[in-house]
Amino acid sequence: MVNHSIRFAVIGGDLRQIKLMNILAKEGYLVNTLGLNKEKIESNVKLSNDLREVISNSDIIIGPIPCSKDNKSLYSDYLDSTVMLEDIFKNISENQVFIAGNISPEIKKIADNYKFKIIDLLERDDLAILNAIPTSEGAIQYAMENSEITIHGSKSLVLGFGRCGKVLAHKLKGLDTQLTVLARKSQDLALIKSYGYNIIRLENLENSISNYDYIFNTIPFLILNKNVLSKVNKSALIIDLASKPGGVDYIAAKELGIHALLAPSLPGKVAPLSAALIIYDSIFNLIRDMGVII
Amino acid sequence: MVNHSIRFAVIGGDLRQIKLMNILAKEGYLVNTLGLNKEKIESNVKLSNDLREVISNSDIIIGPIPCSKDNKSLYSDYLDSTVMLEDIFKNISENQVFIAGNISPEIKKIADNYKFKIIDLLERDDLAILNAIPTSEGAIQYAMENSEITIHGSKSLVLGFGRCGKVLAHKLKGLDTQLTVLARKSQDLALIKSYGYNIIRLENLENSISNYDYIFNTIPFLILNKNVLSKVNKSALIIDLASKPGGVDYIAAKELGIHALLAPSLPGKVAPLSAALIIYDSIFNLIRDMGVII
Amino acid sequence: MVNHSIRFAVIGGDLRQIKLMNILAKEGYLVNTLGLNKEKIESNVKLSNDLREVISNSDIIIGPIPCSKDNKSLYSDYLDSTVMLEDIFKNISENQVFIAGNISPEIKKIADNYKFKIIDLLERDDLAILNAIPTSEGAIQYAMENSEITIHGSKSLVLGFGRCGKVLAHKLKGLDTQLTVLARKSQDLALIKSYGYNIIRLENLENSISNYDYIFNTIPFLILNKNVLSKVNKSALIIDLASKPGGVDYIAAKELGIHALLAPSLPGKVAPLSAALIIYDSIFNLIRDMGVII
Amino acid sequence: MVNHSIRFAVIGGDLRQIKLMNILAKEGYLVNTLGLNKEKIESNVKLSNDLREVISNSDIIIGPIPCSKDNKSLYSDYLDSTVMLEDIFKNISENQVFIAGNISPEIKKIADNYKFKIIDLLERDDLAILNAIPTSEGAIQYAMENSEITIHGSKSLVLGFGRCGKVLAHKLKGLDTQLTVLARKSQDLALIKSYGYNIIRLENLENSISNYDYIFNTIPFLILNKNVLSKVNKSALIIDLASKPGGVDYIAAKELGIHALLAPSLPGKVAPLSAALIIYDSIFNLIRDMGVII
Repeated sequence: MVNHSIRFAVIGGDLRQIKLMNILAKEGYLVNTLGLNKEKIESNVKLSNDLREVISNSDIIIGPIPCSKDNKSLYSDYLDSTVMLEDIFKNISENQVFIAGNISPEIKKIADNYKFKIIDLLERDDLAILNAIPTSEGAIQYAMENSEITIHGSKSLVLGFGRCGKVLAHKLKGLDTQLTVLARKSQDLALIKSYGYNIIRLENLENSISNYDYIFNTIPFLILNKNVLSKVNKSALIIDLASKPGGVDYIAAKELGIHALLAPSLPGKVAPLSAALIIYDSIFNLIRDMGVII
Repeated sequence: MVNHSIRFAVIGGDLRQIKLMNILAKEGYLVNTLGLNKEKIESNVKLSNDLREVISNSDIIIGPIPCSKDNKSLYSDYLDSTVMLEDIFKNISENQVFIAGNISPEIKKIADNYKFKIIDLLERDDLAILNAIPTSEGAIQYAMENSEITIHGSKSLVLGFGRCGKVLAHKLKGLDTQLTVLARKSQDLALIKSYGYNIIRLENLENSISNYDYIFNTIPFLILNKNVLSKVNKSALIIDLASKPGGVDYIAAKELGIHALLAPSLPGKVAPLSAALIIYDSIFNLIRDMGVII
Repeated sequence: MVNHSIRFAVIGGDLRQIKLMNILAKEGYLVNTLGLNKEKIESNVKLSNDLREVISNSDIIIGPIPCSKDNKSLYSDYLDSTVMLEDIFKNISENQVFIAGNISPEIKKIADNYKFKIIDLLERDDLAILNAIPTSEGAIQYAMENSEITIHGSKSLVLGFGRCGKVLAHKLKGLDTQLTVLARKSQDLALIKSYGYNIIRLENLENSISNYDYIFNTIPFLILNKNVLSKVNKSALIIDLASKPGGVDYIAAKELGIHALLAPSLPGKVAPLSAALIIYDSIFNLIRDMGVII
Repeated sequence: MVNHSIRFAVIGGDLRQIKLMNILAKEGYLVNTLGLNKEKIESNVKLSNDLREVISNSDIIIGPIPCSKDNKSLYSDYLDSTVMLEDIFKNISENQVFIAGNISPEIKKIADNYKFKIIDLLERDDLAILNAIPTSEGAIQYAMENSEITIHGSKSLVLGFGRCGKVLAHKLKGLDTQLTVLARKSQDLALIKSYGYNIIRLENLENSISNYDYIFNTIPFLILNKNVLSKVNKSALIIDLASKPGGVDYIAAKELGIHALLAPSLPGKVAPLSAALIIYDSIFNLIRDMGVII
């Protein structure tokens, strides 16, 4: 069982991070945070403008996802002043843990000067898989908002059958679309078949892509290049879930008059509370996996 | 088989009506319409500003849904000038048919002065059921847009198991919500059970409504009254699909700080092309049901 | 709420009837029965060989489904001696209720000589719909047992979209068959479409029936006549759920070498305990619908 | 594209192997086989009693699944005389391929004396995943046949979320069971959640196993030991899909009066034609993966 005496600092980030501190506080954990607007947070979250104090009163310091956008300062869309990562790291002691998302090699290099444990949440499979849930719902929401037809009865293509492709395919099927999935590996093709979806192979993509009303991409390379795009139906909608720069030649899409949307970071946008709960679950899975801590 | 020599007039209405004339034209039917912006329509739709000509060149005259908003003039959101129903009706001869939606007793009274056949599409079960598809998707889209949590894993309640409740429940289940349906008739309760949904009876609504994250109403009476609303979770979202005035005491909801959305006429808003295709299918079912016409 | 002081007699029938008395006894009701093998039943079921006593100690007398096979004697596959319906009826007094299934006009005529209330459970929609659950699972079990192919990926046709067709279609789709449903009414066709199934119309049955691996019939007339059967694929399997004589020309099927199974009364055969629970639920729905009794 | 000039030998095995040669023959391939009953096979399969001839006329030699039961002779349940593996292998030349299932180290050692390519089909992920389809349907069939209740509405537990667990869970959910899955890895737990199933962790198995009506095991170690079995509901049914000796203490189960079925090799038993089609698909995936051959 998880020890309720674990104390947390939650710093930086976006709306998810604020919801995360509220969840922790509601669950009875001591939560410290740095310089926040009081209105949005639970009354028992401890606010302070003293970074050293926030950190020293905590066992686990939870930074944002992503940790930083410039590899130097803490990413935050609500803090008034800039907080440098180095200033955070130098206050964390050996027996504390720093957890955040998308920790780049540059950031790791800064942290290497200190002795605390640093963990990238986005490298955990469970978070990535659970994030596929709000990502898939967000993709469906975008599809609904940007189309004149229902998903029901229309022809949908999902490119890729990794974590996101699997969950998105399941949800789309649940809305009674005519579903086809593209994958390359034999075992993925077998699993696609075992779920009852139609299969398309990469070599047939160009020939058959004109059939689809909705095209969802989860593959992180330029699969929807100019050549393939030229065969896409003009009334089709492309939703690109691959991380930037995505899997679509957007310049070609624009020239061809094809509607293609790059939709990154959906969980925090379409379902910030669920996204925060997923981070919460993942952090406690992590704590469990590390064994008893503190 | 349907006779391709049937000639149509499509007049008034909203975006669905324009899409309907395009579908008919693409399928090879002769379509006449009244005074439209040329850009949006297929080149072979015959435009005219002479109502008499539009009607006399047609076998079936398709008016809008709803037929009128004042029981006197044709409902249209794109025509420049007002067209009186009486002016339409007096030009329709005995062996022609007038089809529209929501034909009120007042409108029928005007039509009774003439001898043509007049049919209300919204009285047809097939249209009402098929409209439940875009209505359900629209309700799901609204739920996604107005909530911080995913539908996946959340607790959803559908009030009513008529045409719309059936389809909405099916779609919500397909998105892996924890689904409960309220109905009254024994046979509905049995069918709900046979689909594997949870059941709630009206007498237990007040006691258990605090459990739900999403509440979808399809029942056309004030089921979510002040008393029931006072038990609803503050973070819940109510989406009311019952036709106006809906099934929610909106004044009480506002007082109580509960988010309730009245969402009428979803098909035309969220999926106008699918909505037009449904009207198209329903019209041809109607023609088939009437036997060979003309 | 249901009154626990209601006393029951449960007489005749098959395994379901024995399970029904056990369920009632377990739920704390007083249950009387006639001349049973002691081993299979709960210790607190009151056994008696005196029919008059069994009835006089009960408020509700539950006969079997079907009530009789010869319109004269009580149907039972475990009683040693024959019990005449007339002998039962003459012992039931005015303020008692007799409930059974499939009460024929002949049986009703006998009962008309007496003053008690007589109710046919099979005329209740809820029982019929709930029975569609074990019927559908039984049909799927028979399909699995009698075929060399999986239901997954195969082509299944369900004839009819009444109570049984609806539930069977839902279950087959859940096993990822390629599902087509035949129905006639416009509203049924619309509902089939809204569930995402393929549709076939009666006029196209003969032309397309050769496509199907599994054909499930729920329509109570000779829809699979010699002419249609002659087009069925030789390796297909027909499962006929319509009540006797069913919807298949069995002589023609045999001549043509087509495997067709008449599968009546599945609930009691494939899932007697679930079937008894359904009867139990339906009896208490009935009691609730009748208002306070006794 | 696959070269139609590939010539096959199909030897030994069970009903699946016979169906496999028929499928190959129907698809237009030249198929040779050894000493078979003529009645069951397609007319264009070339029968011979001369092993050398059968092999020399083929490019790919397909042995049975399993290849052998004694590591010496070819497994077959229809051949009159015993065929030694060594006699087969010595006739296969360098540019031929031998494919079979469950090729033991002992068998490989014999084959090592010769220069042909030898491939174990069961080591291919695609075959293992596709076999999960008939395995899952077979498990469901066994569950239906050995229980008095419907799967619908009952409580089912699937132990393990590997290839078979994934597909079985999907099918059971499709039949509206109340589904719980046990897994250990964080990423599996996340995927289970993303499919909307309930989760149970190993440490809670003993405490909660009494809740389940159906318990399906796919984990190849003794998870259902005497201790756990002692908590299982007496009316529950255990179906064990793990390969022999399975994951159940069968002696303890018998003592405790718990119904536990070891159900190995389901595909060939419950759906031999589908099983053969899966082998067929897997062989051609293999040929495709090997590149152009011959």
